[in-house]
Amino acid sequence: MRAEIVAVGTELLLGQIANENARWISERLASIGVDVLHHQVVGDNPDRIVEAFTLACERADVVLVTGGLGPTQDDITRDALAAFLDVPLDRHGEIESLLRAKFAGLGRGMPESNLRQAQVPQGCRYITPIRGTAPGLVAELPGGGRIYLMPGVPLEMVEMMEGTVLPEVRALSGPAAIVSRTIRCTGIGESRVAEMLDDLFRALTNPTVAYLASSGEVSVRLTASAATEEAAAAIIEPVGNEVAARLGDAVFTMEGESLEGVVVRLLGERAIKLALAESITGGGVGKRITSAPGASSVFCGSAVVYTAEAKHVVLGVERATLDGPGPVSEACAREMAAGARRLFSADVALALTGAAGPEPHGGAEPGTVWIALDAGKVRHARGYVAAGERDRVRRWAEQAGLDLVRRYLEGRELPSSDRII
Amino acid sequence: MRAEIVAVGTELLLGQIANENARWISERLASIGVDVLHHQVVGDNPDRIVEAFTLACERADVVLVTGGLGPTQDDITRDALAAFLDVPLDRHGEIESLLRAKFAGLGRGMPESNLRQAQVPQGCRYITPIRGTAPGLVAELPGGGRIYLMPGVPLEMVEMMEGTVLPEVRALSGPAAIVSRTIRCTGIGESRVAEMLDDLFRALTNPTVAYLASSGEVSVRLTASAATEEAAAAIIEPVGNEVAARLGDAVFTMEGESLEGVVVRLLGERAIKLALAESITGGGVGKRITSAPGASSVFCGSAVVYTAEAKHVVLGVERATLDGPGPVSEACAREMAAGARRLFSADVALALTGAAGPEPHGGAEPGTVWIALDAGKVRHARGYVAAGERDRVRRWAEQAGLDLVRRYLEGRELPSSDRII
Repeated sequence: MRAEIVAVGTELLLGQIANENARWISERLASIGVDVLHHQVVGDNPDRIVEAFTLACERADVVLVTGGLGPTQDDITRDALAAFLDVPLDRHGEIESLLRAKFAGLGRGMPESNLRQAQVPQGCRYITPIRGTAPGLVAELPGGGRIYLMPGVPLEMVEMMEGTVLPEVRALSGPAAIVSRTIRCTGIGESRVAEMLDDLFRALTNPTVAYLASSGEVSVRLTASAATEEAAAAIIEPVGNEVAARLGDAVFTMEGESLEGVVVRLLGERAIKLALAESITGGGVGKRITSAPGASSVFCGSAVVYTAEAKHVVLGVERATLDGPGPVSEACAREMAAGARRLFSADVALALTGAAGPEPHGGAEPGTVWIALDAGKVRHARGYVAAGERDRVRRWAEQAGLDLVRRYLEGRELPSSDRII
Repeated sequence: MRAEIVAVGTELLLGQIANENARWISERLASIGVDVLHHQVVGDNPDRIVEAFTLACERADVVLVTGGLGPTQDDITRDALAAFLDVPLDRHGEIESLLRAKFAGLGRGMPESNLRQAQVPQGCRYITPIRGTAPGLVAELPGGGRIYLMPGVPLEMVEMMEGTVLPEVRALSGPAAIVSRTIRCTGIGESRVAEMLDDLFRALTNPTVAYLASSGEVSVRLTASAATEEAAAAIIEPVGNEVAARLGDAVFTMEGESLEGVVVRLLGERAIKLALAESITGGGVGKRITSAPGASSVFCGSAVVYTAEAKHVVLGVERATLDGPGPVSEACAREMAAGARRLFSADVALALTGAAGPEPHGGAEPGTVWIALDAGKVRHARGYVAAGERDRVRRWAEQAGLDLVRRYLEGRELPSSDRII
């Protein structure tokens, strides 16, 4: 079964909103094993909407259309469907009564413009709206295909997808199931990951693999299809384990967790309290930690010490360190970590200092980062030079810091100083 | 001039990400007066990519393609372009040298897979990548059209759009000038803003207006077109001033600055040093302040005090306050601000405490937020209850806090306690 999604709306072509409806619908269709091969977006133009319907119905079994079912003059998707099917629009008495009752329930009269929404192309079914006033429309095509029209308002679209369209499409498409698994890793680049895995996937068509790189992480997503969910999961299982084995301890989750989520979960499991000392990241690590569920029972706080004076006064970094090796140095990172551990009475503290650029800072070249972990008995520091712009250097510092804590909590080898990109 | 956007990537068809690239490109093309009539999305399939190129080139003068230029086996957009043009791919020596130099600069050897990125369909130009390793590609079509291939990684795409593609498309599309102005405000909802301005734009077609709401801000974007840039600017000027006058001191910029950028600029102009005390935002305000240019000379640091103990030990909040009114209270916010001002020897300090939800915290209902400003002589606190989920409550707290500092620095009236949504 092949599906295609057509979004109607000039606001999409003007870039006022992203096509989040198509993303959501695609994700739901993938979850029931239906292949989406194309998305189209067209504006509120009758000819171009009909052309889009024609193209979509040629190449897909089911076409899902969003947008243009409202009450105003520029809502013309139902007129375009009538033109495409070459049938007249009839005013539908049941819908009219429903709309009048909706407005009466709000203590208001119905504007005449809403009568447009009671029109149905001859021979089509309609889907009753619960939240809004725009009925969905369903046309069966002579060739056996089917086209669904849904409102563009996300909540109204979701209501019709979940209530009517998905169950109907699932019934049409048979019992196939799709299972996905995402393996996420950090501290390793996308092309290196692909190199380590490519031979594994060159011969495989099920599961398929997709690499997604963003913000210092690489996600490897495996997707398997089979007759049942259990069978699809069984196909993925050995391949997922092989991927994880090859990528080794760069993998921080096979369950789709965020890196900060993994750290907070591990802290909770081990009843360990964490404090931070942040300079280069400015509070970014604290923000990520506190966005993870359960942070309040394992996170004490973060001393964001942006100036040399604050590093000395708040965290007790020695003036000799600041004047000697400087604020971007192994010694400073280690003293910051020790200071944060003491200040917050934490079990383990992570410190991050560096020169984010574009200017050198504290005698260090842009991109230089020192991170230190202090857990009392275990103390570790790591320096590296990152390439790229300020935002990227800061984001990678967050990743490197969180990953150092993750590796410590998992009892893995702690990475030594090096260059990363 | 008609443009069309083609996005290549199975991850879009699986619903893993929304087509934000097409949104951004559309917005930029609209701003230079270029009509986008269609978006297409296709997966990593050679035949379907060629079909999409064929269709797009039939109906548009300029086709902008994103995605599939990476180094892995599933990156096949450049191969599809060669097939569409019916020309061979040549390995390009300059690109190869550039890529080898990039990897050498990072102290690493280049993986063989990256050599794919040095391939150029015969007769095409390439666009040198600055951030990434994927060159863009440009093909002139026999019928006079043009097709641009750009990477799917947003930062790399944006770099090529701004540096090469937009200037070239603008040159192709003739001498009309488009000038945009974005007026940004916070603390006021989108529908209220539209209500305050709608009569102004009902009769106007030049400039056009677009409202964009996100993350506690509303942007009013005016776009005027005229024969010259000066003429377009002269059309916008009086309308922009009228918009600003109606929205009053909710407006924090007419120059497109970020809220944190405005705060850091004002601090610098007034030589005032800022400290923070963050609980509900977990370091998010510090992260935003330190992302603005010039932060290092005006920002001392932030005490992220997530536990009651840290509020007491680090900032000197009285135990009686924590046990009485509690950690989410006016008294606690005021003591946090005073403590941060003292700890960092700052001129002014901002404190934020609250219950982000979904659970109540410290006796306060989810959504309750207290922010306090302490500038020695001026002291101010404001409480409110925000609706929505945890992330939204935290983001709005950042906005409310930064805006309180902005209003203080601009000498405006400071907002009193209230409910916001």
